[in-house]
Amino acid sequence: MSVLPRHRRQHDGRSALASLGDAAAAVRFASVGDLALERGGVLPDVVLAYETWGTLNADASNAVLIHHALTGSSHVARGDTDVPGWWDALVGPGCPLDTDELFVVSINMIGGCYGSTGPSSIAPDGRPWGSRFPLITLRDAAHAERRLTESLGIDAFALVIGGSMGGARALEWAVTHPDAVRHCAVLAIGAASTAEQIAWAQPQVLAIRNDPHFADGNYYGGHTPDAGLGIARRIAHITYRSEAELGARFGRSAQPGEDPLSGTNASRGRYAVESYLDHKATSLAGRFDANSYIVLSDALMSHDVARGRGTLEQALAGVRAEVLVAAVTSDRLYLPEQSFELAAALPGDVPVHLVDAAIGHDGFLTEMGQLGALLDAHVFGR
Amino acid sequence: MSVLPRHRRQHDGRSALASLGDAAAAVRFASVGDLALERGGVLPDVVLAYETWGTLNADASNAVLIHHALTGSSHVARGDTDVPGWWDALVGPGCPLDTDELFVVSINMIGGCYGSTGPSSIAPDGRPWGSRFPLITLRDAAHAERRLTESLGIDAFALVIGGSMGGARALEWAVTHPDAVRHCAVLAIGAASTAEQIAWAQPQVLAIRNDPHFADGNYYGGHTPDAGLGIARRIAHITYRSEAELGARFGRSAQPGEDPLSGTNASRGRYAVESYLDHKATSLAGRFDANSYIVLSDALMSHDVARGRGTLEQALAGVRAEVLVAAVTSDRLYLPEQSFELAAALPGDVPVHLVDAAIGHDGFLTEMGQLGALLDAHVFGR
Repeated sequence: MSVLPRHRRQHDGRSALASLGDAAAAVRFASVGDLALERGGVLPDVVLAYETWGTLNADASNAVLIHHALTGSSHVARGDTDVPGWWDALVGPGCPLDTDELFVVSINMIGGCYGSTGPSSIAPDGRPWGSRFPLITLRDAAHAERRLTESLGIDAFALVIGGSMGGARALEWAVTHPDAVRHCAVLAIGAASTAEQIAWAQPQVLAIRNDPHFADGNYYGGHTPDAGLGIARRIAHITYRSEAELGARFGRSAQPGEDPLSGTNASRGRYAVESYLDHKATSLAGRFDANSYIVLSDALMSHDVARGRGTLEQALAGVRAEVLVAAVTSDRLYLPEQSFELAAALPGDVPVHLVDAAIGHDGFLTEMGQLGALLDAHVFGR
Repeated sequence: MSVLPRHRRQHDGRSALASLGDAAAAVRFASVGDLALERGGVLPDVVLAYETWGTLNADASNAVLIHHALTGSSHVARGDTDVPGWWDALVGPGCPLDTDELFVVSINMIGGCYGSTGPSSIAPDGRPWGSRFPLITLRDAAHAERRLTESLGIDAFALVIGGSMGGARALEWAVTHPDAVRHCAVLAIGAASTAEQIAWAQPQVLAIRNDPHFADGNYYGGHTPDAGLGIARRIAHITYRSEAELGARFGRSAQPGEDPLSGTNASRGRYAVESYLDHKATSLAGRFDANSYIVLSDALMSHDVARGRGTLEQALAGVRAEVLVAAVTSDRLYLPEQSFELAAALPGDVPVHLVDAAIGHDGFLTEMGQLGALLDAHVFGR
């Protein structure tokens, strides 16, 4: 395990890391060696990209690990950069995760495209992994990440936290490394990916695979399958929001200057909600690698904290962390009832905290006030 | 307006009509002439495919018009064929729509691929319409269909009925042709397509357009965009079912003989729910034309019975039919609350009947017992 110079970025083709812009300067890289995978095989010479905020105290008791969701990055907070992070209001000096007191770590998950070893990384044969990148589970990620955090001098985290896939990663940490997690916050996700969630992931992945530029995943150096990735993002984004939110924002309005009933089906103008989804699609395709989208989707679909560990109750019996479980009231993808099932199976009497929001699943990204209050009350006892 | 010989099938490439198999023998064709479209332009020489069951009585008072949904056909019931229809239990001798007493008509919507003029039909220049097929609204369809039903000697229907897009077609009939509809049954749809429904349609259409074989819609005679159409169907099918239904049927089970965590992302086995969706995709791609899917999706997204008619209440003020409004309790695509909005805006005191089913939107296709009971009680007074 060695910390690498910042210039080591094993990427070919479009570097998603570059889309971090000035924030990329905050990213560090560490080699964690060869990684034996849960389902067999070894991923050689794994590099993890990560960011930190604040200072680790003398007894290394103030460390917090934040896990990003499916298309997130390690850039949780702006820190010394000018680029806002995806939980900017939650992480910083004076914030609920107060970087004047805490040492916050966030790691880009293996398989991703923000600097950690993933399908766009260079394989030992000098070519990008592409379609040859192995199937990764959240458990694989937890093992690789532990090596990194130990190298940072952290034996145990005061808190491991995440929402959506980040929540699944946090939960997997609490089960896989019970002695390394004192508090665990599992937001907007249950104990395992469900048939519904697996179903929604499938057309997303297939839309990427069916893109004319996908080239069986070996598109680096050529055109990228942006249209397919954009379709995946549209599907996902709708599931991340609520019917009520889309209705209130867009209704049946036409995009200004366009007429959805003009011309032919191929040339007609757009409804406002279509323009909105176009924007979401373009935005993701401009910053994310399609192969990473597939690898991380499959990893998320593998989420089943009880796999190979008996019943769910048996699997969770060894958890030593105090677990904070929270769900978004209007979440239609990761249903609150799944958070209740998780809480009921955890040792002790674990309540479910409901984040009251109309937006849907994305409430775990938008409701910083409520999340901060939950952390204040139930983790930091403020 | 003339009834055409049955052999007139204006199709090139794969004939979806052929996928009706023996049922195709029951399909008749009628030319309804040039159709001036709601949004301008003329669709020349429109042919409508239709089926009938039973016999029109002397005063033509026993006619029922059944409208199919997005990918449906005129084959509502088996009739004299060996091929079950999509509402077989509802239509036939002794059924709630009793063909010993009623004369039942069902018409393939323009834009479709089951015999009516659509994008796979031959345009005046001798080539398939393909991408040149104009944008069609449900109002256009109602005008074309009225010409056909008048030619059959039907001035007014005892009942016009449909579910999902079929319900939208029925409602549009009751508003566009108020004197021609005595009862109208509007199942599992509201007064207009919502932002949510428009949002879901978009990635479906884009998945077809982005298929390598789509060729801008001019794929007839070559490979058809089956993969894209299959992706569209997967998205749609999930929205047609409920989370609970998918969960109860499939959970996280692997497809027998396959391992979702084996191999690479490209080669892994499937979850059972993925295999199920694959089957739904293959099935539709084997029987439906991708351009028709786009044309009819856009027609359904155009659904807004109040367009150009003032407020919804004003638009519905002229309805003379007794309207039966029903919604499926677990429908997450066409929400029951949208049926309540429609009912509240209709003249008089119109209740909403709830079809109690866990399956989701598709309850309008599966809950024949409840639908039959509603028709018995509220249309036929049995």
